[in-house]
Amino acid sequence: MRKLTFVLWLFIFPAVLLAQDAAVLQQIKKEGLENSQVMDIAFHLTEKSGPRLMNSPGFYRAMDYSVKQLKEWGLDDVKKDEWGDFGKGWELKKFYIAMESPWYKPLIAFPKAWTSGTNGLKTASVILIDPEADSTALVTKYRGKLAGKILAMDKMIEYELDDKSDLVRYSKAELDSMASIQLDKKKSDDSEMTERRKKWIQAWRDARKKAEVLGNLAREEGAVAIISSSPRNHDGTVFVQQGGSHASDAPENFLDIAMALEDYNMIVRLVRANEPVKLGLEVASKFYTDQEKGYNVVGEITGTDKKLKDEVVMIGGHLDSWQGSVGATDNAAGAAVMMEAMRILKKLNIKPKRTIRIGLWGGEEQGIYGSRGYVSKTFADRKDMKLKPAHEKFDVYFNLDNGTGRINGIYLQENVAAHNILKKWLAPFEDLGATTITPGNTGGTDHLSFDSVGLPGFQFIQDEVEYNSRTHHSNMDSYDHLVEADLKQAATVIAGLIYQAAISDQKVPRKELPKAQNSEW
Amino acid sequence: MRKLTFVLWLFIFPAVLLAQDAAVLQQIKKEGLENSQVMDIAFHLTEKSGPRLMNSPGFYRAMDYSVKQLKEWGLDDVKKDEWGDFGKGWELKKFYIAMESPWYKPLIAFPKAWTSGTNGLKTASVILIDPEADSTALVTKYRGKLAGKILAMDKMIEYELDDKSDLVRYSKAELDSMASIQLDKKKSDDSEMTERRKKWIQAWRDARKKAEVLGNLAREEGAVAIISSSPRNHDGTVFVQQGGSHASDAPENFLDIAMALEDYNMIVRLVRANEPVKLGLEVASKFYTDQEKGYNVVGEITGTDKKLKDEVVMIGGHLDSWQGSVGATDNAAGAAVMMEAMRILKKLNIKPKRTIRIGLWGGEEQGIYGSRGYVSKTFADRKDMKLKPAHEKFDVYFNLDNGTGRINGIYLQENVAAHNILKKWLAPFEDLGATTITPGNTGGTDHLSFDSVGLPGFQFIQDEVEYNSRTHHSNMDSYDHLVEADLKQAATVIAGLIYQAAISDQKVPRKELPKAQNSEW
Repeated sequence: MRKLTFVLWLFIFPAVLLAQDAAVLQQIKKEGLENSQVMDIAFHLTEKSGPRLMNSPGFYRAMDYSVKQLKEWGLDDVKKDEWGDFGKGWELKKFYIAMESPWYKPLIAFPKAWTSGTNGLKTASVILIDPEADSTALVTKYRGKLAGKILAMDKMIEYELDDKSDLVRYSKAELDSMASIQLDKKKSDDSEMTERRKKWIQAWRDARKKAEVLGNLAREEGAVAIISSSPRNHDGTVFVQQGGSHASDAPENFLDIAMALEDYNMIVRLVRANEPVKLGLEVASKFYTDQEKGYNVVGEITGTDKKLKDEVVMIGGHLDSWQGSVGATDNAAGAAVMMEAMRILKKLNIKPKRTIRIGLWGGEEQGIYGSRGYVSKTFADRKDMKLKPAHEKFDVYFNLDNGTGRINGIYLQENVAAHNILKKWLAPFEDLGATTITPGNTGGTDHLSFDSVGLPGFQFIQDEVEYNSRTHHSNMDSYDHLVEADLKQAATVIAGLIYQAAISDQKVPRKELPKAQNSEW
Repeated sequence: MRKLTFVLWLFIFPAVLLAQDAAVLQQIKKEGLENSQVMDIAFHLTEKSGPRLMNSPGFYRAMDYSVKQLKEWGLDDVKKDEWGDFGKGWELKKFYIAMESPWYKPLIAFPKAWTSGTNGLKTASVILIDPEADSTALVTKYRGKLAGKILAMDKMIEYELDDKSDLVRYSKAELDSMASIQLDKKKSDDSEMTERRKKWIQAWRDARKKAEVLGNLAREEGAVAIISSSPRNHDGTVFVQQGGSHASDAPENFLDIAMALEDYNMIVRLVRANEPVKLGLEVASKFYTDQEKGYNVVGEITGTDKKLKDEVVMIGGHLDSWQGSVGATDNAAGAAVMMEAMRILKKLNIKPKRTIRIGLWGGEEQGIYGSRGYVSKTFADRKDMKLKPAHEKFDVYFNLDNGTGRINGIYLQENVAAHNILKKWLAPFEDLGATTITPGNTGGTDHLSFDSVGLPGFQFIQDEVEYNSRTHHSNMDSYDHLVEADLKQAATVIAGLIYQAAISDQKVPRKELPKAQNSEW
């Protein structure tokens, strides 16, 4: 089936590549695979910078590094590019947690972002909270009982023995299945998905509301902290995001600490067995309010063709991360690969017809704010769909943000008209395995900002590796969980792809222009 | 092949079980599988007691609990049974570790047992130590440079992506292969093993010597701590044992902290990149020297047959653990299963002909000291092989100490004469899967103490579950990693096995009496 498709496009594009272009692609492969700097870039974005929670000092260090680095490589117009208001930064300054009674045990945990500290070292008893109590019952039941306490839901987190490998890669059969997906069927799935999604969003809002009520009650009462866990938090891996709003006008969120289920369940079991459990806890965190604007980093290799240089081929990944580790796979991987792709092209002194631009986005984790802001001010705001001149000139955007895994191909986002040209551009990288084109959608990251205003915006099909099992938003999203060979492959494929896009006779076809929309998501 | 063997022993033991005995085995299954208390026992040994490092308060709490519990169930002659000198206890009292510079990160780590503290909160720079330097070069190179420093080997720990499941269970093919192993072949393997083992022991001694030199130099110089890691320490799981001797006359060992490789490598990479790394560190530990004797817990169901009651069928597992968690799979699992087997027999008011005795051993982790001491004072010392009267009377010892996994069968330790009788006793539990008998050996735990003086001492073939991947000697050896169904199965099989042994017409055949030996291992 795929072989047939492959043969078909050979007929559609009989002149596949000029000899000189093919030679450049060979040079790109050589530079990308043999002289890669992607791991050094990743080191600077991760361990040299620290966690890159939006508007935290680590984010700014990474931003400064990437601006400096892109300039050093000779990119044009490299800058920190403001896109609007974001809100507060936050950074963990001290964290100590241990069970002190009935016996001493250090605990594996991590405070949620944008929560407040303990104001010094506290020793506090744990009180179990009825997980069935709704927002009203919580207040009735626990008013007057929470002062000086640490709160935990009276609910075990089930530990399931894992009979699957942490490492996940696509099989050929899975990729073939993705390539041959039927969009009609997909659409009906989508409407089911929308129903499921609505329910999920409602459940999420209910849970958020309840958490807010409990947090407020805990603060009013003078409690010390809330601890929480989840079935994914096992073996020392803890997934941790935010404990509430980062908005400028939001109050500091009550301290909420994500904990390994082994430690969490131990505490619940001991309290249930009438064993008074006391934890020692010290959290110091800092909110940064002096600079609440949001920034991306952009830079480019300016096009050299008079007619085409205003047309933009763009790549990007987000620069910000969560705080539990250094956001290596989410998404230093994507940012480093995209920087490396630009480095490769500059190293080879490529003179593209179109302009090739990189965007390293801020505020992705809180709602793809950076790319939305950039698209909104540059091309069109999805809320009114008033198109700016650059909208027509824009060519294509490629995003990388699904971890460290190698590129197997690309999601078309239902833009089936783009199939043949993408197939053509990927063909020279068949030896690197990047051949699958699925008409289907993938969501959750910055290509949606482009897609939602009718610009071709694509995300790659990447091997999961440990993204779902270990690294995605966890305390294990660390440098050692990056896979060097995969990042080299990705940077090489992308460098070749955008080189071809930037010299192509045609721009990437577009989907029908969408209507204005005003959804939160 | 196995079917044939099964048929064969039916001819050898034509009267398999009397009807009344078969009825008792049914009751044992019912009690063990439907009214199990094994998880409650395990809870008391683990989270209620704390880590059970030998001679620490947690060990004593578990000992007190098990003595009380065995008495409550009505066992006879339950006692703490001294076996000689052990040495100091040790307990962690406070542990804080974080990277404070270049940015703040809590680190996942655990101090090695019997190491000293920091005497308050310290902030210290990390210095990298040449891993190629031998004991002499270490002193030459680092004298005068270690004051106030934290030492780390200048060596990355390679992180290997794990394409296997953490959960491991035996396949039928693997068990069949174990059952049909040829002992002659096995012996030649053993001699290769002995060569390999000698080399391993030499390498281990060299490493220990170097660690001792570095530790002494670090102490003399006024360094703060050593940090170390290993390839197994990933995803937040950290394996941690002792940092030196527990002997009464040994000095306190220099502080040595086992660390997650993600954090360890980060520190090494940053220092290599000329980024000054400072850690905040506070360790308080307590050495217990008021009671340095070693104890086991023993108790029994006294035999009711005048001629046979001096013959002893014994079961055991070790009560002590390492300190990184609560030693759930190593070996609260074994101790809880053996206690539960005794509970089942008492609950059914079994009146065995022979005496059934349980031993919960101390000091296993430091060299199977507890069982060695018990065997030495009760039956024979392997160093002189002067047999005491109880040696002849003894029947058989069964040990459980390979984690939480279900019992698939038993290792004969080359005692092929015992094959048929063990096969007969396991047969009623074929429905629970405990059918494999391998002539081969397994080592590393307390059955060796019996085996080494010529007494039948066996260890069961258990599914690994997560023993090698996650729990064995790690900070993840916690209650939630116990598998309830497996522990119930094990307790039921063992209760049935020892019931049959205690009413059998014959004792378990023995191997030839070994010569006196004086090896350290």
